Amino acid sequence: MSKIHNFSAGPCILPPQVIEGAADAVTELNGIGLSLIEISHRSKDFVAVMDEARQLVRELLNLPDRYEVLFLQGGASLGFLTTAYNFLSPDGKAAYVNTGTWAKSAVKEANFVGKAEVVASSETEGNKLIPEIPHVGSDYDYLHITSNNTIYGTQYKSFPKPDCNLICDMSSDIFSKEINVEDFALIYAGAQKNMGPAGTVLYIVDTEKLGKSNRPIPSYLDLQIHIKKESMFNTPPVFPVYASMLMLRWLKDLGGVKEIATLNRQKADLMYSEIDRNSLFVGHAEAAHRSDMNATFMLKDENLGAEFDEMWKAAGISGIKGHRSIGGYRASMYNALPIASVQALVDVMKELESKKS
Amino acid sequence: MSKIHNFSAGPCILPPQVIEGAADAVTELNGIGLSLIEISHRSKDFVAVMDEARQLVRELLNLPDRYEVLFLQGGASLGFLTTAYNFLSPDGKAAYVNTGTWAKSAVKEANFVGKAEVVASSETEGNKLIPEIPHVGSDYDYLHITSNNTIYGTQYKSFPKPDCNLICDMSSDIFSKEINVEDFALIYAGAQKNMGPAGTVLYIVDTEKLGKSNRPIPSYLDLQIHIKKESMFNTPPVFPVYASMLMLRWLKDLGGVKEIATLNRQKADLMYSEIDRNSLFVGHAEAAHRSDMNATFMLKDENLGAEFDEMWKAAGISGIKGHRSIGGYRASMYNALPIASVQALVDVMKELESKKS
Repeated sequence: MSKIHNFSAGPCILPPQVIEGAADAVTELNGIGLSLIEISHRSKDFVAVMDEARQLVRELLNLPDRYEVLFLQGGASLGFLTTAYNFLSPDGKAAYVNTGTWAKSAVKEANFVGKAEVVASSETEGNKLIPEIPHVGSDYDYLHITSNNTIYGTQYKSFPKPDCNLICDMSSDIFSKEINVEDFALIYAGAQKNMGPAGTVLYIVDTEKLGKSNRPIPSYLDLQIHIKKESMFNTPPVFPVYASMLMLRWLKDLGGVKEIATLNRQKADLMYSEIDRNSLFVGHAEAAHRSDMNATFMLKDENLGAEFDEMWKAAGISGIKGHRSIGGYRASMYNALPIASVQALVDVMKELESKKS
Repeated sequence: MSKIHNFSAGPCILPPQVIEGAADAVTELNGIGLSLIEISHRSKDFVAVMDEARQLVRELLNLPDRYEVLFLQGGASLGFLTTAYNFLSPDGKAAYVNTGTWAKSAVKEANFVGKAEVVASSETEGNKLIPEIPHVGSDYDYLHITSNNTIYGTQYKSFPKPDCNLICDMSSDIFSKEINVEDFALIYAGAQKNMGPAGTVLYIVDTEKLGKSNRPIPSYLDLQIHIKKESMFNTPPVFPVYASMLMLRWLKDLGGVKEIATLNRQKADLMYSEIDRNSLFVGHAEAAHRSDMNATFMLKDENLGAEFDEMWKAAGISGIKGHRSIGGYRASMYNALPIASVQALVDVMKELESKKS
């Protein structure tokens, strides 16, 4: 299984240890004679899993005590709604930055709840960059951003400093680099890129900023209810939480977020250096806004596509076809992707160039 | 592993084939060199899983074409809200039957959206029965019921016939017995009892009844959006859907719902016969309303508790402690529980009686 270079944009590559550990727990958990997936979520064995997962998030991101950690369901798509219910007051307004598909969906859901305004957008530039963001004042309840765009391959290099709460959908780059959590009132992230398999979504919330939206909130969307129930308001997604816990353990053992950030930087440098050097390819996103997670690029001559596709497939590379909305190629280099996989892709790009010169 | 008699109330026992198949797919799916949990949900391998799962639901419940099948997230708890958004109109009202904890939660969430009235309740009887339900007319948008109560051990033996839509939370008895789906506008059910592991929730909806609530609906709660996207509006919970698909395959191979209903009836008969026969025990729920899924019972003399607990634990029995709200014992006998496990429990009950007589 180790021979496939898995560049899938998400759900995506997970470390072999995580996959093995997850399969083992499905067979039997902790030698208790039962599978992980057939025991009560309130059994001591699973409560320990949930506790460890939440604690690992605290450790890996150096969370101050006032932050709470939740593992819920519904992905970022439900997170868009949850965000607005918990932070957007009936008389208030929220500022949103539109950097592409998911950011736009976030605005739509927020507008269901209250007043959401787009204060900056990269739409006219085809979302090839992170737009200039005007200063957002305390007349807004929050500023919402999407830290990384998987489709266009853009990523914030630094975060805005509004005079209101900052909220971030970090689904595609959480745990990939160091962040200062205290800059954020709320971070949420679907697990299925850097944190684990599909089926759970992480919330990291500043409890001092919570509970001020002054509106009724449906129970499942009420973060205060989930905090009170320690992520067990209803039956949690047992397997996705377990596998995420294993992934967080793996990250801790590796040296934590600081160490993975170095590795991710090396992978991105290797990839983008080749895209810029190779005469046959051109990068899609603007250089200053390129994502370390998802490198998007095109062949200058599309006629070489069939040959290139055959070559990378023969090299055991999988999942680099670009999103249907922009075409070309996308190399997703999430936490678990080894640099050897990036090297394999780079080698194929070099080989194509030497065949054509 | 086969020696444990797993009576867990949910998440609960799954067939060994399902557990083995799920563990195998986590290790590697279909010989593709990748794990189930690290491939795109839009890859042909996973799309085939989702399609098969939905198709198996259709087959097992003989769904007419106008019904659609969805695998979503958030459990029944989010289903309470989804139900009201999709079926409760701004000027309308919904009728609810309160048969305990979950039914009550359903009312609460519906009241967030619109007007929900409790038309029948078993609360004053300690939820030991399914109450008489008055005829519900077409002046209601729908009548909502909860087919089985896991805590109190009650279950509908037949369903009401209102002159409005009938909606049912079948989380704890779906696929356990034959039903006429055409009686229902909507059925929803968390997977983690009879259908699979925790982390996905099934919706079966009559599309001719859908889209008439005449109110804006947040995207994740809009069943029409999920239908249009074939359960792929956002990243689905890949592993829970896969394991549910295996469980549905297992049920089909076994002979389908008709066959499992016979087996479930045999288990329930064996269990309740002993509860009624044994001089040391008394059933909790009223006999006419007893659940085939969850048998609740007490020791007449609580002083025998420690001895009984020691005996069933020694017999390899797990998970029969009653819910904290009513105490006593609860034997959950979901689809995957072998009758041999019920026999093992019955044997221990007999043994206790013979020791005491």
